[in-house]
Order: sequence, then C-alpha cells, then structure tokens
Amino acid sequence: MASTTSPVNGAHALLQTLAANDVTVCFANPGTSEMHFVAGLDQVPAVRGVLCLFEGVATGAADGYARIARRPAATLLHLGPGLGNGWANLHNARRARVPVLNIVGDHATYHGVFDAPLQSDLAALASALEGWYRRSTSSNDLPGDVADALSGAYGPPNRVATLVLPADVSWGDLTAAPTSWPLARRRAAQPFDEQRLERARRALRAGGAALFIGGQLDEDQLALARRVADATSSRLIVETFPTSLTRGAGVASAERLIYLSEFAQAQLRDLASLVVLGTTRPVGFFAYPNVASELVARDCDVIDLAPPGVDLNATLAALVAVTNAGALYVDAGEAPSAPSGALTPESFAAAVAATMPEDLIIADESNTSGLHLYGATRHCPPHELLTLTGGAIGFGLPVAVGAALAGARPVLALESDGSLLYTAQALWTMAREQLDVTVVALANRGYAILNLERQRVGAAAEGSASQRLLDLDDPTMDLAGLARSLGVPAHTVTTADELVTALRRSYATPGPTFIEAVLPTSRF
Amino acid sequence: MASTTSPVNGAHALLQTLAANDVTVCFANPGTSEMHFVAGLDQVPAVRGVLCLFEGVATGAADGYARIARRPAATLLHLGPGLGNGWANLHNARRARVPVLNIVGDHATYHGVFDAPLQSDLAALASALEGWYRRSTSSNDLPGDVADALSGAYGPPNRVATLVLPADVSWGDLTAAPTSWPLARRRAAQPFDEQRLERARRALRAGGAALFIGGQLDEDQLALARRVADATSSRLIVETFPTSLTRGAGVASAERLIYLSEFAQAQLRDLASLVVLGTTRPVGFFAYPNVASELVARDCDVIDLAPPGVDLNATLAALVAVTNAGALYVDAGEAPSAPSGALTPESFAAAVAATMPEDLIIADESNTSGLHLYGATRHCPPHELLTLTGGAIGFGLPVAVGAALAGARPVLALESDGSLLYTAQALWTMAREQLDVTVVALANRGYAILNLERQRVGAAAEGSASQRLLDLDDPTMDLAGLARSLGVPAHTVTTADELVTALRRSYATPGPTFIEAVLPTSRF
Repeated sequence: MASTTSPVNGAHALLQTLAANDVTVCFANPGTSEMHFVAGLDQVPAVRGVLCLFEGVATGAADGYARIARRPAATLLHLGPGLGNGWANLHNARRARVPVLNIVGDHATYHGVFDAPLQSDLAALASALEGWYRRSTSSNDLPGDVADALSGAYGPPNRVATLVLPADVSWGDLTAAPTSWPLARRRAAQPFDEQRLERARRALRAGGAALFIGGQLDEDQLALARRVADATSSRLIVETFPTSLTRGAGVASAERLIYLSEFAQAQLRDLASLVVLGTTRPVGFFAYPNVASELVARDCDVIDLAPPGVDLNATLAALVAVTNAGALYVDAGEAPSAPSGALTPESFAAAVAATMPEDLIIADESNTSGLHLYGATRHCPPHELLTLTGGAIGFGLPVAVGAALAGARPVLALESDGSLLYTAQALWTMAREQLDVTVVALANRGYAILNLERQRVGAAAEGSASQRLLDLDDPTMDLAGLARSLGVPAHTVTTADELVTALRRSYATPGPTFIEAVLPTSRF
Repeated sequence: MASTTSPVNGAHALLQTLAANDVTVCFANPGTSEMHFVAGLDQVPAVRGVLCLFEGVATGAADGYARIARRPAATLLHLGPGLGNGWANLHNARRARVPVLNIVGDHATYHGVFDAPLQSDLAALASALEGWYRRSTSSNDLPGDVADALSGAYGPPNRVATLVLPADVSWGDLTAAPTSWPLARRRAAQPFDEQRLERARRALRAGGAALFIGGQLDEDQLALARRVADATSSRLIVETFPTSLTRGAGVASAERLIYLSEFAQAQLRDLASLVVLGTTRPVGFFAYPNVASELVARDCDVIDLAPPGVDLNATLAALVAVTNAGALYVDAGEAPSAPSGALTPESFAAAVAATMPEDLIIADESNTSGLHLYGATRHCPPHELLTLTGGAIGFGLPVAVGAALAGARPVLALESDGSLLYTAQALWTMAREQLDVTVVALANRGYAILNLERQRVGAAAEGSASQRLLDLDDPTMDLAGLARSLGVPAHTVTTADELVTALRRSYATPGPTFIEAVLPTSRF
C-alpha cells in the first residue's frame, strides 16, 4: 500500500475501510470517546450515520438491515454500557445468523490502567455474543482490523463482530495512509455431507418424513424444498422463528412449527424422520415440568443435513436431484377480504392480510395477538416476514428501522404493548429519517403470554401479587400519545373497520404512521 | 435444620430466604422461566414485587434503593437478554459500590444442552460486573446460595451479586423444608493502614494538602472530614460522582471535583498531597489528546488511606485524633430566593434550591444543564444527592424509583432530554406505585455535552453529518406528552417563575409529577 501525503487519522481510515467494503450505514449512539469517528463522517459521506436514542435501537436496526440487505451495517456504541444496552438485540442478531459489525468506542489505550468510571470488561460482554472480537491497538492496524472484523461477520455462518476502538487509536494519525483499503475475505459455504444426503434420501423415500427448514429463506429455496416434499409425500415445516421468510401468492408454502412445546410435540409426534436444513433441530423454547425438551418423538430419525454454515442452495438442489422432484405446484387462494366489526386477534390478522401492499416487509413482534397472522397472510401479495429469532423482546421497532433503510420497500412492524415499551425510542428515528414504516401496536394491556404461563403454574387470584406482575392496565398506557411524543403521527383504532382504514391510509402516506389497536384484555 | 411437613419449592424457599435477610423489595421484569418465582410472591408477602417495563429500570431501581436503604433489593431478570438490558445500570451500581442481588431466571438445568433460542453465556455477561456470581444447581442448595449471594453483595466493599436460577431449581421441591432460613454473613470493614495514617498526618501538617473523599457520605462523616481539614488548613474535596452525599444547611461542606479534565487539573494543580478516603484516586473521566489521565500534578503525594472496603468511620476518627481537630464549624448562609424571568441553567438551579423541601433525595442526571446546581443548593434544607457513579446514562429515573421506595421521603429526579430517553419506562412504575417523585426534564434539544466534545475535535458545520448525530431537535420530542402517555401528570414550563410554581405544586401533591423545562438549545 503506497502512501499519500495528507495525514489520515484512525477514525477516517476506519470509515474509508467500511465504505470500501460496502458498509454504508452506521446506526449510532455516540459518546465522548467516539467523537473523532463522528467528526470523520463529514469526510466520508459514503457512510451514513443514523442517530438512535438508545443502543438497543442501533443494534436491532443493524439486525434488520442485514436481514434485508444481506450485508452488514455498522453500529457505533459507547463503551461497556453501550454494548450492554445493545446486547439483547445483538443476541437476536446472533440467533438470526446475520452479519453485524459493532464499533465500540473505549478509553484511550493508556487510560485503561486508571480504571475510570466507564471502564469495564468489554471482552467478557462481547464473548457472550459468541462471534468475532478484537480490541484494536494501533491506528495503522485499524484498516486491517476492520477487514478482519467483516471477514468474521460474514462467516459462514454470519456472526456478530465486535471491534473495540480505543479513543487514541481513533484520533491517532496513520504513519502512511494507504492508497487502497483492505477488503474482507469472503469464504464459500461448506459443502453438505454426502452420507447424510443418502440418509436423507432414504428417509424421505421411506415415508413419514418432514423437511424442517429455517434461517434466511427466499422464494427459490422454498420452491426447491416444496418440490422435494411433494415428490416424497413429506411435510415441509419451517422453524417457529426464521430470520426471514418470503411468503405470499405464488410462493411455495410451508407449515410453521408451533411455539408452545406441547402443541409442537403433537405437531411432530408422528414423524419417522426429520431432515433439518439451514437451521438446528427443533427444541422447546422453554422447559416445563414433565415436558420433554426435544420436540420430535424419541424414535424420530433426525438428520442434520445442512446446519448453519453449510451451502443450503446446493443441498436443496442435491435433494431435488436425488428425489427426482417434479415441477413446483403452488396452490392458488385468495387473501381474506377486509374484516368488519370487533377487533380480535382474528380480525386483526385479516385486516393486515386484506390491506397488504406488494413487497411488504413485516417485522413481527405481535406475540400472542399475532397467532392468526401466519394463516391469514398465506395468499397475500409476496412479502417478507422477519421474526424474533433470539426471543429477546424489543426487537420489532428497531428491526423495522433497519429494514426500511435497507430496502426501498414498505415496512409493517407488529408490536404488543409489552414488547413495544422495550425500545420505543426507535419511533423517533423513524420520524427523523422519515421511514415508510407502519407500526400496529396491539394493546391488550397485559403480558398475555405470561398470563398464560402463570395459569400453567396454578390459579392466581385477581389482584394478587403475582397477577399484578403481569398486568399492564394500571395505569393504562396511551401508546398513540407515546408515538406522537416521539414525532410519529398516531391513531387509535378500536374496530376492525377502523384498522383497515388506518392501514390503507398509512401505506398511501410517506413516512411513519403509528396505529394503536386496542384489543380486549386477554388473560387466556 | 429440621424439616416441616408441607413441600416447599425452590422459588418459595428463595423468597423466604430473601425475607429472612430483610430483602423485601424485588424489582421485576419476569418471563416464562421466572413464573414459579412470580407465583411464589403470593405465598411470601414479605417480599414486594414491583413491576418494571424494562430491565434497566429494575436494575437502576435496585441501585437507588440500596443507596437510600443501605441494604440490597433484589431484581428479577429473564435470561441473558434480561441481564443484558439491565447491565448498564448494574455497571453504575458496581461503581457506586452498593449491594444488589440479581436473580436471573434461566432454562432448566437439563435444557441447556439443547441451546434453545434464549440461551447465552450468563457467566460471561455477569463477569463483566466484577461482583459475585453463581448458578444454582439444586432446589435444596438454593437457600444457601441466596445467603452466599447476599454475603457476596455485602462485601465490604458492597458488590453486585448475580444468582442464576434455572427453572427446574425454581420449580423443584426441597426434600426437606428448613425451619429457619440461612442468613448472610456480614464481615466487618478492613482496618486502615497505620503507616499510611502516619503518612497522611505528616502530609496534612506539612500544608498544601487536601482530603479527597467519596462513596456514600453522610453528615457525620463529612463533619469529621471537615474538622480534619480545618485543623490542618487543608481543602476538602468530594469526588465528582459520589454514591450519595448529604448536603444542606448545617452540613459540613466540601468543594466538588470538576468533571472536565483540564478544569479538574487546574483545581488540583497546587496540591502537595492528597489523602484519599472512601474512594479511589481522581482520574480523568475520559482521555483526551495531550491531556494527562491523572488529575493531580506529577509531584503530588497521593495517599490511599481508606480505599473501598476499609472502615471509613474509623479512619476519619483516627484522623481527627492525630490532627487534634477541633469542633465543627459550618458557615451559615441562605438558599437562593425564587428566581424570575428566563429559564437558564442558572435560574433552573435557583428554582430547585428555592423550593427544596426537607429531606429531599435528588437523583441528578441533569448533566451539562445542572452545572450550577451544586453551588445553589449549599444552604438548602438538608438533602441527599445521588449521582451518575458509573457514567452509564439512563440512571436518573430508575434510581428515583428505588430511592422513593426505600425512604418515605420526596424524590427529585433531574433529567436531560438525551438521558431521559434511555429508561423513560420508569415513569410508568412511578405512576403505578404512586411514588412521590418530581421529575424535571431539561429539554435543550441536543446532546449538549457531546456538542461541546465535538467542538474540541474541530469545527463542525451546521447541518453537517457529524452535527446531525448530536442534535435532538428533528423532530422535537414532546417530553411532557411522553410522561402523560405513561401515566404521569405533566406540565411544560418555559420560564423560571413557572418552574418554581410547578415545583412547589408537585411537592405539595402526592404521587409523581413530570415537569418539562424547555431551555434554549445549547451547543456551547
């Protein structure tokens, strides 16, 4: 790398390396130690800084961005508390197996020995993300560190990469500015195991089999899987929480694994074999007394044919070949018509389905209230569903921010009141960036899923201490008011008709809209 | 421990052990894996569950509770994401050296091998808190684990203790329920070093010395320190961010270490020696190019006489003895009269001082806007100041929740718009529990401290990418609307007169009040 004449500091070099690697968005919540990075944004306009008012918004946005753009965004976080605040949505990104690059500003290298108030063990915090981690130690090394971090993020499988940027590495000048910036190494996915393919072929031919598929699933992959399933009279089951799932008219369909363990076990009970593709074998989201952790029957033959990191497209193509699969048949059908009357989980799902525009992205954190959504949207215009991969709530609004910035497509974020309150700050970024996001917040005034779980433990009296820990109705929150306070136009609807009207109006209007949909309080 | 007849499950035993150890409040954001703990609250009414809508509220509340009650509250958190969301305020609690007991629900012990979506490395996350950590592995061991955790939390110095509670340990029955519950071991603080005392005595006698004091400081400790300082013509300087500091009329005063390094260095420049008590030696909050990390001059003799964990009262008494310190003299003075006219940082401080009731607790996260507060409140009625010990913003509102529950005293939370948005969910808990908290939110529509830091790096053009990452005025947030949406009555004030009126009304009214105080946009 030949040198040029004008001095380049670490932050500038870092940003140039990001731009050279097509990392063009940085979701930022900066502090003092990141100020040279912030200043560098004026010199490298190819990287767009997007301000988030809380780090969990920044990390969730990077997750959503990667799910749609299929390449990483950067986050800019402020020392340990910044990484801590962003940790939960990074956990979701880890489970989604999407590439994310965290830049975590830290004290200057020589300042560490003094244990200043904001210092903490960043390596320990990051290690719990089980991805790539490095602390950069010199401005000259920084471009290479960034390229290595991106190599780590890309896997395969994709991972969360965390690069710690000490303040002096950021502000220090490089001794020689390179004329080109280093690029991340992209490795090919691993090949599938031929013996497992043969085992899968025999299992599918033997009958009573299912393909269990997950991860980031596009229309072509679903078509291949559907053809294999049809050729072998097998079932095609998608994991409960895929990273992204293309759905709608003309797209091969798959049944979805049910969330609650007992129901999932009933769903999988009769399977003789399960061929697992693009994800890991099904397991209970939680353990319960006297309920097995594994969801398939004891004698079901589980074949891990394409674990994460293995080439899913090649595996599916091989399955098509060895099963002599025929052409794709997709059953025709119609989206529900616009519902009327009371707002219920059923009419909510129908309203979403009846109004859906082309190419919609849905960030689904509707939880219990969204139970009927998957069925209702089967024959809608093609769309993409993003789900709660890691189970860390507070994912929906931030992911919607990132998804909206990644694609020039409308985004629908489905929220419940309980989960909305984790990262509501994302609404402000939607307003600031004028993102085409429609938020539907289902207000059932309680942690409905927990009320259900509470009942399983034993009866709880109304007004009891335990019941009071699961209710959100004292005081009642004004979710529409919350959205307006953060700059997003908001409406409250109480009927299905009003929800349909509000959805149609929102899709026709640029910028974000917030719709509070009040459901009857649900305690199951 | 003799056994009784009725079966007791782990959760019940845990709660009984908490109650036996006088841990009577649990700030909770539960999930499925914590449901037996939640159910157990109905059986152990001595432990009060307080619902928080975000884990950062729960952990900050536990911090605030411990600062006032001087004993730990418990938190109830949901797996890794729960601990992650609560991490930043636990970092503040760690730096405050207050006792906190985290109960982190986790998957059942046998479920771990399946790597379900919510699983993560809790030990790594907790290790970054540098406190006490254990994963309980059996219901029978749980009471002992809780007592050990509390022993760990009490130190001295106090620490954050994290006990992981697998779901089956929580729901499993003890083989024999004990008739008494184990108690935490309380260790005495360590004695001071006699040689260092002699060194300190000589340094104080030699002149040009200062006492540098920090931690959790009550009126008696400040009186002893003031007497020593006066007897030796030394200065008495309190750390920038003490855990708690009693102040006001009749209370011995101390100058406060300035936040910004260059000013702090000027403040300490002429000191020949510094006797450090109850805290660690002063260090720059951040590093800056060409600014030393240490705040005292190179030739200043720093004597770590009473580091955290050493008996501060005994050390101060010994200093009084070896310096033959006389009686306490406290200078008289008057609180400012109620200000009028424009709302500025100066008139804001005067308004707070002029209206202050007896025994107020102030949770101060006013940041740049609170610059004049320390001076203005010197002669107010006695009150207690809680500050941002670990530098992780989002501390003020949660700490106010905990402080209000710990003492039957009015609480004033001073917030800036930037920091308020981190953990605004605390407002809902204030409304739900009808806490006597007055929130003053200083809206200057920007990250003022960062605008200052940005200017130090070099000029930034108005509307530039870097400037845009530090401004909060597009869109403007309606902070009063935000508070109302979460159930707290709110007013917006734009003059000093209105602020005075609003403060007086709030102190006279039970329950929480939110006052949005609009300041001119400040970019320094």
